[in-house]
Amino acid sequence: MRDAFHDDLDMITDQLVEMTRLAGSAVSRATTALLDADVHLAESVIAADEELDAIRTELDALSIDLLARQQPVATDLRIVVTSMRMSSDLERMGDLARHIAKVARLRYPQSAVPPALNAHILQMGQVAERIVAKAGSVIASKDTDQAISLEQDDDAMDELHRQLFAALLSEKAEYKAEVVVDLTLLGRYYERFADHAVSVARRVVYLVTGQILSDADEAAVDREEQEETQSSYARPASA
Amino acid sequence: MRDAFHDDLDMITDQLVEMTRLAGSAVSRATTALLDADVHLAESVIAADEELDAIRTELDALSIDLLARQQPVATDLRIVVTSMRMSSDLERMGDLARHIAKVARLRYPQSAVPPALNAHILQMGQVAERIVAKAGSVIASKDTDQAISLEQDDDAMDELHRQLFAALLSEKAEYKAEVVVDLTLLGRYYERFADHAVSVARRVVYLVTGQILSDADEAAVDREEQEETQSSYARPASA
Repeated sequence: MRDAFHDDLDMITDQLVEMTRLAGSAVSRATTALLDADVHLAESVIAADEELDAIRTELDALSIDLLARQQPVATDLRIVVTSMRMSSDLERMGDLARHIAKVARLRYPQSAVPPALNAHILQMGQVAERIVAKAGSVIASKDTDQAISLEQDDDAMDELHRQLFAALLSEKAEYKAEVVVDLTLLGRYYERFADHAVSVARRVVYLVTGQILSDADEAAVDREEQEETQSSYARPASA
Repeated sequence: MRDAFHDDLDMITDQLVEMTRLAGSAVSRATTALLDADVHLAESVIAADEELDAIRTELDALSIDLLARQQPVATDLRIVVTSMRMSSDLERMGDLARHIAKVARLRYPQSAVPPALNAHILQMGQVAERIVAKAGSVIASKDTDQAISLEQDDDAMDELHRQLFAALLSEKAEYKAEVVVDLTLLGRYYERFADHAVSVARRVVYLVTGQILSDADEAAVDREEQEETQSSYARPASA
């Protein structure tokens, strides 16, 4: 019985890694769709999100089934509960990539991103791709050092987000309101994407070390994120 | 033993209701802080969020402890797992109220909201307050009809969100980029607040009817929300 249980846990881990792969592909393709004003690519990202949702639903059913059949305690229980939370983070990351693709579709045949901000959005997309790839590798390896290194990628994302606000608020730029709305939402989607990746990594740390980060966790990520961004986007305005 | 278990479940329910009360108070006070440019009120909303985070951490510890000690199956297991998800939604609603308060603090001594949009934001705050109050009452009563009625409040919020975009993009208005950024974020915070309340109500429906909405659930709420908003905020631009 315990072996079947651990086989199931391995399957859960594999599926979580697969979810990071799908979320990474989604955010990468959504960024391309956005920058190239490629509506077909945008549509394909939007459609592909169902796959992530389906894996999540399956994983949750499997987890609840495991809890009922195997009645795990201690570490095993922690793994199952934490996995359910990771799948929730990853499903949400897929949603955020889909949101990005929808902005691309909305503005087609124009690009939502003005040329001056192309390189900036490309960078946000690259950081998003990198952080979710690392999250996948952390889930597979349980490497807590690598888990902690995701915080640096998240800092890089926060810095890019700050710079994006500064660019939008720059008096020289005078972007149309529509551009400001789009870019404000896009900035938030990329930033939240990275936050959820950090949350996944912190949950792995929790599993390995038993440090009760799992819940304080989300609150903490959100709090840091918010402090960073809001204080940040004040800066250019008051400068 | 089973009686102790059900006592614990009752306590969880009470705490979830208390979380809706705190989230409702937070969003109501955050809205006032925003409209009155009241930095002390904003600070108090920001500080009070820790209480919600603490209840959530406690509730999760209790839930995991219940799973380990009582090894619930079937309905009881479903209740515990679903409660953990509701506490996660409610904690996030507290974060969103805190985000609103932070925008108020950021722009103090000015108000982040231009006078022409005051009544609009007030309405969004009122819908947010009403929907979370209903969510609390649904958690306590398990009334599925009332649970379903939250969808209408969410529709009202979506409509207000659409109108907010229309106002921001109106050519007559010509709001400063800073105002557009602030209001875009504020709109998103209110809208997500309502989404999470709907998610809580759907989880209650799932508990009562056993309909597997719980996961499809979140994806569905997000999907609807997104369809609504994005297609909507295109409208004024293309009109």
